[in-house]
Amino acid sequence: MANISDYFIATLGSHTALQILKGAHDEGFKTICICKKGQEQLYKSYGVADEIILLDDFTNFFEIEDKLIKKNAIIIPHGSFVSYLGWEKVQDIKVMHYGSKGILEWESDRVKERQWLRAAGLRMPKVFKTPEEIDRAVIVKFHGAKGGKGYFIANSPEEFHERIKEYPGEEGFVLQEYIVGVPIYSHFFYSRLTGEMEIMSFDKRYESNADSIGRIAAKDQLDVNIRTSYTITGNIPLVVRESLLPDIYTMGENVVKESMKLIDNKTGKPLEKGLYGPFCLEAILDPDLNFYVFEISARIVAGTNPYINGSPYTWLKYDVPMSTGRRLARDIKQAIEGNRLAEVLG
Amino acid sequence: MANISDYFIATLGSHTALQILKGAHDEGFKTICICKKGQEQLYKSYGVADEIILLDDFTNFFEIEDKLIKKNAIIIPHGSFVSYLGWEKVQDIKVMHYGSKGILEWESDRVKERQWLRAAGLRMPKVFKTPEEIDRAVIVKFHGAKGGKGYFIANSPEEFHERIKEYPGEEGFVLQEYIVGVPIYSHFFYSRLTGEMEIMSFDKRYESNADSIGRIAAKDQLDVNIRTSYTITGNIPLVVRESLLPDIYTMGENVVKESMKLIDNKTGKPLEKGLYGPFCLEAILDPDLNFYVFEISARIVAGTNPYINGSPYTWLKYDVPMSTGRRLARDIKQAIEGNRLAEVLG
Amino acid sequence: MANISDYFIATLGSHTALQILKGAHDEGFKTICICKKGQEQLYKSYGVADEIILLDDFTNFFEIEDKLIKKNAIIIPHGSFVSYLGWEKVQDIKVMHYGSKGILEWESDRVKERQWLRAAGLRMPKVFKTPEEIDRAVIVKFHGAKGGKGYFIANSPEEFHERIKEYPGEEGFVLQEYIVGVPIYSHFFYSRLTGEMEIMSFDKRYESNADSIGRIAAKDQLDVNIRTSYTITGNIPLVVRESLLPDIYTMGENVVKESMKLIDNKTGKPLEKGLYGPFCLEAILDPDLNFYVFEISARIVAGTNPYINGSPYTWLKYDVPMSTGRRLARDIKQAIEGNRLAEVLG
Repeated sequence: MANISDYFIATLGSHTALQILKGAHDEGFKTICICKKGQEQLYKSYGVADEIILLDDFTNFFEIEDKLIKKNAIIIPHGSFVSYLGWEKVQDIKVMHYGSKGILEWESDRVKERQWLRAAGLRMPKVFKTPEEIDRAVIVKFHGAKGGKGYFIANSPEEFHERIKEYPGEEGFVLQEYIVGVPIYSHFFYSRLTGEMEIMSFDKRYESNADSIGRIAAKDQLDVNIRTSYTITGNIPLVVRESLLPDIYTMGENVVKESMKLIDNKTGKPLEKGLYGPFCLEAILDPDLNFYVFEISARIVAGTNPYINGSPYTWLKYDVPMSTGRRLARDIKQAIEGNRLAEVLG
Repeated sequence: MANISDYFIATLGSHTALQILKGAHDEGFKTICICKKGQEQLYKSYGVADEIILLDDFTNFFEIEDKLIKKNAIIIPHGSFVSYLGWEKVQDIKVMHYGSKGILEWESDRVKERQWLRAAGLRMPKVFKTPEEIDRAVIVKFHGAKGGKGYFIANSPEEFHERIKEYPGEEGFVLQEYIVGVPIYSHFFYSRLTGEMEIMSFDKRYESNADSIGRIAAKDQLDVNIRTSYTITGNIPLVVRESLLPDIYTMGENVVKESMKLIDNKTGKPLEKGLYGPFCLEAILDPDLNFYVFEISARIVAGTNPYINGSPYTWLKYDVPMSTGRRLARDIKQAIEGNRLAEVLG
Repeated sequence: MANISDYFIATLGSHTALQILKGAHDEGFKTICICKKGQEQLYKSYGVADEIILLDDFTNFFEIEDKLIKKNAIIIPHGSFVSYLGWEKVQDIKVMHYGSKGILEWESDRVKERQWLRAAGLRMPKVFKTPEEIDRAVIVKFHGAKGGKGYFIANSPEEFHERIKEYPGEEGFVLQEYIVGVPIYSHFFYSRLTGEMEIMSFDKRYESNADSIGRIAAKDQLDVNIRTSYTITGNIPLVVRESLLPDIYTMGENVVKESMKLIDNKTGKPLEKGLYGPFCLEAILDPDLNFYVFEISARIVAGTNPYINGSPYTWLKYDVPMSTGRRLARDIKQAIEGNRLAEVLG
């Protein structure tokens, strides 16, 4: 039997690194944290990394790739990893990489993502092609919008043309139906080894200033001319009404099933492996309990961070604290011990 | 000593079934989940049910009652159970039933509920008999309001008559003083076996769209003409200012004490057992720290779901993860082992 | 080796007493809860106190000080303790007291506090000296404001003079720049014994009515003329975006470092011990991810109460549930066992 002591679990020191490294430790792996210089103290403080590799900038990742290969490291791609490198460069990674690489293109391209989610039967907010089509509240998202700013709401073509003036130089944008309802982020894990999918947890984001303007009385908001922005600052744990879980479970299963039919850009054939490991459906739940999914993340998301010691849902199934980070380390462990590692590498 | 292995804990697959079944398992019981066809995969996925019984519809419960009786099952009534069957039909259940049946009438009838809570000395929002009496902000709740919709706020008789026009066909309604303050749901457990009451946990609901409209700037809300609805979508954990806990403790004790004086509809005598097991006080806490209780739930509520692995409060007392579901399973276990089962069945 | 069984951990029954007493128990200490008469049942119910001492009023603390001294008790000062006694009287305490007393003056005086935080390099909201200087949204806080009421927002000198009329008799106030962003409370622990600082957890407060007015549609708010108040009613757990943690860690370290240079009022020399034990930075995080720190608490705060069974962060480092209350009990235990108790007493 192959032995996990021959491997390191490695990730970039940001996003969900704490739970990934801690989870890997708990499953018995040695760990490497690739840190931006000056940020290593945090990871040392929590004792989650056996080795720390310093980089001036995360975009210099390829400088240390050989080092990782020599150490037999398996890299765990999280949101910051994909964001710093870009999904195209992730395709070129030679170090062992957990999770499907091909799926990242489908996740990163709004048109392809929509095609996938629609094939899975999910309800999505309507998208308008031109401002003239606006016949209800829409949220206008700029392609270049970084960190949640550069969004606005418009109710008509006229309002769109009026408010877009405040964003000179912004070229591309998406016009998405604005669904009034609560945001809910559903976290899943699908294992290729066992063929089982689990609902891991739920969260809501804590966004600045979106989650604080409600604390300002309407009169004062009007006085100060408050505008909403959506910079993610953290996450708040929540549980979802139990009667909704069967549908959420089905949504997750359908997304996995459809992912296996998606066409790989490079080969022109269906993705060999499809979606597996952790993923997240980001949705608005309206007052009639309809889920409107507006995005999928095909890798671990920061919304799982509240559950480093397990979630109300993982405690149903596991008798140890099962974070999403630990769940994927366990997937790798089972793959190694079953001589099936290639099946979980992308 | 009677043995718990002779019994099954059974409940409907919805609402709080996951914690009830998991909690029963943890206490050593075998479990039955009564599922709506097509929803069983969720319960299988978490491994909480030893047996799954399928129903086309939960209202067909009585079709399988004999089966449950033969298995020596004890049914745990949660909110969905009471809601699907109606409190009147719950009285006719022949299978063993945890908790007082008589109390359900008092919980389900707004007038009786108020009488009970007032006798317990709780502060409640004022209720107005006719629209003409409205002299402050009131929330108008329709009797038929399902899932949190069909509420509106009015400040005067004039505004009431104006806005009621938008709800043609709605006959009955309650006019309740609208208290401006934060909602807090307090979860209690009272054991008839030990005579002790515990504060188990607190939560706030996550309601669509009420908990998202604050994320929309006031100006945009006015543009889009946002109206509030209160569909429950989930629950968020919280803790309450410690200096408030002694009063909350007293409120819980008084509600239990008064419940024993309530008159049973059928016998015309005081309820034999009163309120026991899990219950919840649903309140608004105003800026002067006054609790306004607007409802009591005389059984387990979904607001305990964040605490499947224990709450900050249960960890003070127990050295195992004590969900409310597990707490009631423990109550049953102690009853069986002490040959006092009849005392906890209603 | 000195033995912890010779000591009691004692605190006032309020604020964070449950976690302090439970944490002390978990570390092996005997505990005393000093309760206001009529509030002891709560502490009995959770079994956290070996002894309960009753007081008519917390301000009568000095009546029982001798008793505590005879018992070899170590008092843990929490927010209510400092608030009931006043920081000046805390200086006169003769019973063993965990934590620096001198720092309390710096925490309690808004001008000194600002001086300290600025020296530590923290970004703070601008303070205006006179209403005439108001050139942006400011929050007006009255010195006498108790429990979060008596605040208002003004955008100009004119609006200030208009709204101040609603608060006759209020003399002193602070005019602080109103930063629009999400509140985040960061909880730290610094041990003088090990020289290490830890990020323990984060929370947001749950304030009445601030955290509920957003549930009221803007139109209805305007109708009812809603004003915001900030009475603390509880706390909600959250995690912070991981990429922010290195900066938060540095902020904590700098605050500790600067505390050692602060001048002691009585001796005219630098504080012998500076800040140690638990502390909290209270900040607004704006949409550009800038932290604006508006307050420091130099002792345990109630925002750590969600984490009686450990936080997502403490579970990274400890294999037992490490509340802030337990962490400080462990500090005392290590001090006693290492014959270094004097180093942690203030």
